[in-house]
Amino acid sequence: MQELESSLLAARLNARYGRSLDAGFLDEWPQYFTEDALYRVTTRDNFLGGLPGSLIYARGKAMLLDRVQALQRANIYEVQSYRHVIGTPLLENMVDQTLKGETPFLVLRIMRTGETSIFASGSYVDRIAVRSDGQMLLSERQVICDSSRIDTLLAIPL
Amino acid sequence: MQELESSLLAARLNARYGRSLDAGFLDEWPQYFTEDALYRVTTRDNFLGGLPGSLIYARGKAMLLDRVQALQRANIYEVQSYRHVIGTPLLENMVDQTLKGETPFLVLRIMRTGETSIFASGSYVDRIAVRSDGQMLLSERQVICDSSRIDTLLAIPL
Amino acid sequence: MQELESSLLAARLNARYGRSLDAGFLDEWPQYFTEDALYRVTTRDNFLGGLPGSLIYARGKAMLLDRVQALQRANIYEVQSYRHVIGTPLLENMVDQTLKGETPFLVLRIMRTGETSIFASGSYVDRIAVRSDGQMLLSERQVICDSSRIDTLLAIPL
Repeated sequence: MQELESSLLAARLNARYGRSLDAGFLDEWPQYFTEDALYRVTTRDNFLGGLPGSLIYARGKAMLLDRVQALQRANIYEVQSYRHVIGTPLLENMVDQTLKGETPFLVLRIMRTGETSIFASGSYVDRIAVRSDGQMLLSERQVICDSSRIDTLLAIPL
Repeated sequence: MQELESSLLAARLNARYGRSLDAGFLDEWPQYFTEDALYRVTTRDNFLGGLPGSLIYARGKAMLLDRVQALQRANIYEVQSYRHVIGTPLLENMVDQTLKGETPFLVLRIMRTGETSIFASGSYVDRIAVRSDGQMLLSERQVICDSSRIDTLLAIPL
Repeated sequence: MQELESSLLAARLNARYGRSLDAGFLDEWPQYFTEDALYRVTTRDNFLGGLPGSLIYARGKAMLLDRVQALQRANIYEVQSYRHVIGTPLLENMVDQTLKGETPFLVLRIMRTGETSIFASGSYVDRIAVRSDGQMLLSERQVICDSSRIDTLLAIPL
């Protein structure tokens, strides 16, 4: 059951993560990461080829906060909204209270005009730190996008 | 674990709810609600602005049954089908054996011609009554649609 | 809890199943089935009408392996990729360590050009064999597609 409980807790982490982004609570987004976390958005081709290129790359919570503040200043975030639909996480134990996780996702974009489209799909490839009280935080989230054609205005976190 | 068990039971309630609508078993739909339940479909803008306008508003199981019967008479339901994809519920305890829940959803519409499109996305904002035997019923479901552009023929429950 | 545990294990089976197909690990696909499993892809209309027609029909693991090898030879699989988003399984106990399951799904197709579209939606209607160590295998998976308009090049498993 230990394993199944972890799976439920990871699903909840993802649900909260998605809710913060979809509700426009960008401020909350960095709180799902550890202090020195890596956050990266890349394409499947890059990832499979082991290439370093990233659409977004941030190391450490300070960079995540910077990104949030830049988005808030630019007000880019408010002209559209997003909807994350996140699948079941597949977990593997690693050393040191860390889990390896992989989770499929789909993100819709809803324009102010009301038009809805598929914005991105892919999988989250994660390292998840499990604290002694059971709380989970992302120490690494690589967002692997299925499509190589990502909107060049991509500024919001996925 | 109590909390995780609730989360699983709420996920199952949603799965059954979605299955009833997608399989065309409209008769089953009211059974997921309490006798005096509130069911409302509205837009994100309305909801965030605290505005009362609703695309659908029903108070009490009798109104839900009425709606089902009207749909069945009109046969509107049968010219297309729907597919709900429902995410992980986020729950919070309230008093009196009641949970507050929020769950993202996506609904596809499949026309008789075979064409499939995104019909709606959003989140269910719920109050869930937990009976002593553990069964869950919706005492309130507010369907908050991301898009303000909802098909004006919207008659089916979401 | 027994029941909830089964639900989690079935969700994990589906998650692994989807991951194998989406990551292009076609070789792994047959391993989710029992030796004499039935795998069938059909439309909702066919299924509801009790009609025998199938878009794909395979009986036994050998036929599943054949299909995988044919796809690999044709390299059809590599010109596009897929993304499964799979919902919560609804389970029912049957005799003989077997569960009946029904699970909604959505599959996106991502072309090499980057274009993403809804490829299929529907539900998995399953019989799941539960081994004494708890491992689950599909003894039957009927993939019921919502739309009657399925790409005629449909060769990949859903």
